[in-house]
Amino acid sequence: MISFKEAEQIVLRNLMDLGKELVPLENSVGRVLAEKIYADRDFPPFDRVTKDGIAIRFQSYENGNKLFKIQETAAAGSAQVTLSHPNDCIEVMTGAMLPKGTDTVIMYENLLLKDGNAIVEIAPQKSQDVHSKGSDEHSGSVLLDSGNLITPAEIGVLATVGKSEVKVKKLPKIAIVSTGDELVNIDEIPEPHQIRKSNSWSLKAALKSQGIIGELLHFRDSKEALLEGLGKAIDNYDVLLLSGGVSKGKFDYLPEVLEKLGVKKLFHRVLQRPGKPFWFGLNDFCTLFAFPGNPASTFANFHVYFLPWLRSSFGAQTDRCHAVLNERFENTTDLTRFILADAQLSQGTIKTNLVKDNGSGDLTSLARSNGLICFDSNRNYEVGELVPFYPTKKIL
Amino acid sequence: MISFKEAEQIVLRNLMDLGKELVPLENSVGRVLAEKIYADRDFPPFDRVTKDGIAIRFQSYENGNKLFKIQETAAAGSAQVTLSHPNDCIEVMTGAMLPKGTDTVIMYENLLLKDGNAIVEIAPQKSQDVHSKGSDEHSGSVLLDSGNLITPAEIGVLATVGKSEVKVKKLPKIAIVSTGDELVNIDEIPEPHQIRKSNSWSLKAALKSQGIIGELLHFRDSKEALLEGLGKAIDNYDVLLLSGGVSKGKFDYLPEVLEKLGVKKLFHRVLQRPGKPFWFGLNDFCTLFAFPGNPASTFANFHVYFLPWLRSSFGAQTDRCHAVLNERFENTTDLTRFILADAQLSQGTIKTNLVKDNGSGDLTSLARSNGLICFDSNRNYEVGELVPFYPTKKIL
Repeated sequence: MISFKEAEQIVLRNLMDLGKELVPLENSVGRVLAEKIYADRDFPPFDRVTKDGIAIRFQSYENGNKLFKIQETAAAGSAQVTLSHPNDCIEVMTGAMLPKGTDTVIMYENLLLKDGNAIVEIAPQKSQDVHSKGSDEHSGSVLLDSGNLITPAEIGVLATVGKSEVKVKKLPKIAIVSTGDELVNIDEIPEPHQIRKSNSWSLKAALKSQGIIGELLHFRDSKEALLEGLGKAIDNYDVLLLSGGVSKGKFDYLPEVLEKLGVKKLFHRVLQRPGKPFWFGLNDFCTLFAFPGNPASTFANFHVYFLPWLRSSFGAQTDRCHAVLNERFENTTDLTRFILADAQLSQGTIKTNLVKDNGSGDLTSLARSNGLICFDSNRNYEVGELVPFYPTKKIL
Repeated sequence: MISFKEAEQIVLRNLMDLGKELVPLENSVGRVLAEKIYADRDFPPFDRVTKDGIAIRFQSYENGNKLFKIQETAAAGSAQVTLSHPNDCIEVMTGAMLPKGTDTVIMYENLLLKDGNAIVEIAPQKSQDVHSKGSDEHSGSVLLDSGNLITPAEIGVLATVGKSEVKVKKLPKIAIVSTGDELVNIDEIPEPHQIRKSNSWSLKAALKSQGIIGELLHFRDSKEALLEGLGKAIDNYDVLLLSGGVSKGKFDYLPEVLEKLGVKKLFHRVLQRPGKPFWFGLNDFCTLFAFPGNPASTFANFHVYFLPWLRSSFGAQTDRCHAVLNERFENTTDLTRFILADAQLSQGTIKTNLVKDNGSGDLTSLARSNGLICFDSNRNYEVGELVPFYPTKKIL
């Protein structure tokens, strides 16, 4: 058996190159940018008026002029107008091109408008309320880097430069494979010895939060069914997330079947709880995360192995985050422990309590928690210590 | 003009009751639960074996028996079997029903299997490795409360109790309305005095992150076009997010048009920067957030007004979060300032720097930041102070 640290390193050394694809702008939010985005023109593209008021030639004011005859109005979206007489002004709207012959904007609040004239009541500064051409970005400069996560703010930049289609990292094609003859579908009434599938639905929802539509597959606990079903699945998907079938039971055929199918085992069984019988392997085209079947194990291993693997495969940073412990904890085992957390952001700091659960079959405790704390083997932890924290819900 | 605090209170006092709807389980992630979820049976529903090994009658071991003849094997998903002779055992798999006549499980690691017998090598404790019927939850107990956000962990619980359809809070039907004759579509080449629409796309992406598909509408800066277009939109949508048309410009017709359409103005203009000309109002069926048109204003007001309003309308908590300031800031104005933040989680604490931007037209600074800090008017802020923080990207 290997340690959690070794297992984590092996997973993160075996990333997948997912390639790139072009998607419509509106589908690109949440995806990882796979091209550099350049300014297609200066930003702003012209000397842009930023207040509603008048545009003047500042020299005229400096020469003592305070009453400016209004020549005409320049709206946002109109072609540039030109000031005909240096002592007149042009009424300008926010977003308009600064008229030729003017250099300074005076907002309505500082003016008295009367009989077609504007009288300046508060002294202007030269060039005020003009957002100069190219002052944000010059044409050709890099606005967004490849590898950036596309959020609503990046969408604004992409729209501005006219990217109606965006090159992004491809999403892996993933199947979620349940095994276990005790499992029935959610719309069935289970016999006393049966339970409904829950891991598959939980994983499907977790993938959806990553923008990925996972397909659900289920195979019976028989070598033949697994050989046939997994053989096809391995050929058809980039990633398989399996739950069940990797423990020491008589009907835990997965390790043997995967070997027969030519999948290279990178490790099986990790010194951790929950999630010890985790099996990880791959072939040239498919990466397989075979989680132990109980809900807490699948849930923990998805968050501590799969999500960092996915983010790293996208080229994103995977800084581990930390929380401050609100209660002491003794890990007297040789196992890395993942304990459910109830973390709160308080005074700018993430502080966490532990959630009491009832062993690895307890689903409701997963819903009562919002993260996992990682405790090293054979170590006491005191109140106030910083511990590695894996959020499983949104905390801020 | 009213203060930011007043404006915030008015917005949060005018929530929308969105009603409920039934959606398929797989579409319910990210939604707000609108029913209580009860256990449909005990959890676990039977005394469940939690290790692969054998099940024995503990009394037999206590009486000195160490060699147990294996009667048969009980797999997960098989009906319950019965131990025929009290000194024999049944081989059991994780997830199986504990056989009748047994009370204790011994895992393979503590056994020697030989000639159809299991020899106990490490002393068991009575009832070990049995997850007792009803020990997590009793039939009829509340597993999830109405108002809970549905995350992958809740999906597991919903699946287990057979909720193939889930009652959730309805999402509002939202249109994103752009105005401004300087705006062209993203697939067009703008004239020198034009720019492409970006706010609408950014808002659409931000709504998508909330699970809402926003419709894009655009109306010309003319009273007639606005009266006709907005009149229809108000009848067809629960919420309108408008950008542009609320400043003091000659072509900022929105306040006047909305009044004509019978929309009740709750306020117009707030002592804040950016986002000062924000207009908020409603009629009996539609709530209107009319943001000033420049990108920083729309972006800030969406995060500080609309998102808390939406979450509160869903009945979710809207605790404000805080971050620790990494640099000093002087707000010498009478305005509440929203400054772009570059926040990092370090040692369990969210620390934030300020992002220098270039005024309210600067789109790229929005992409370089991950939140907004709220600074009160006329106050100096020192390094290390806690400040209200609105995340605009995922920080952990």
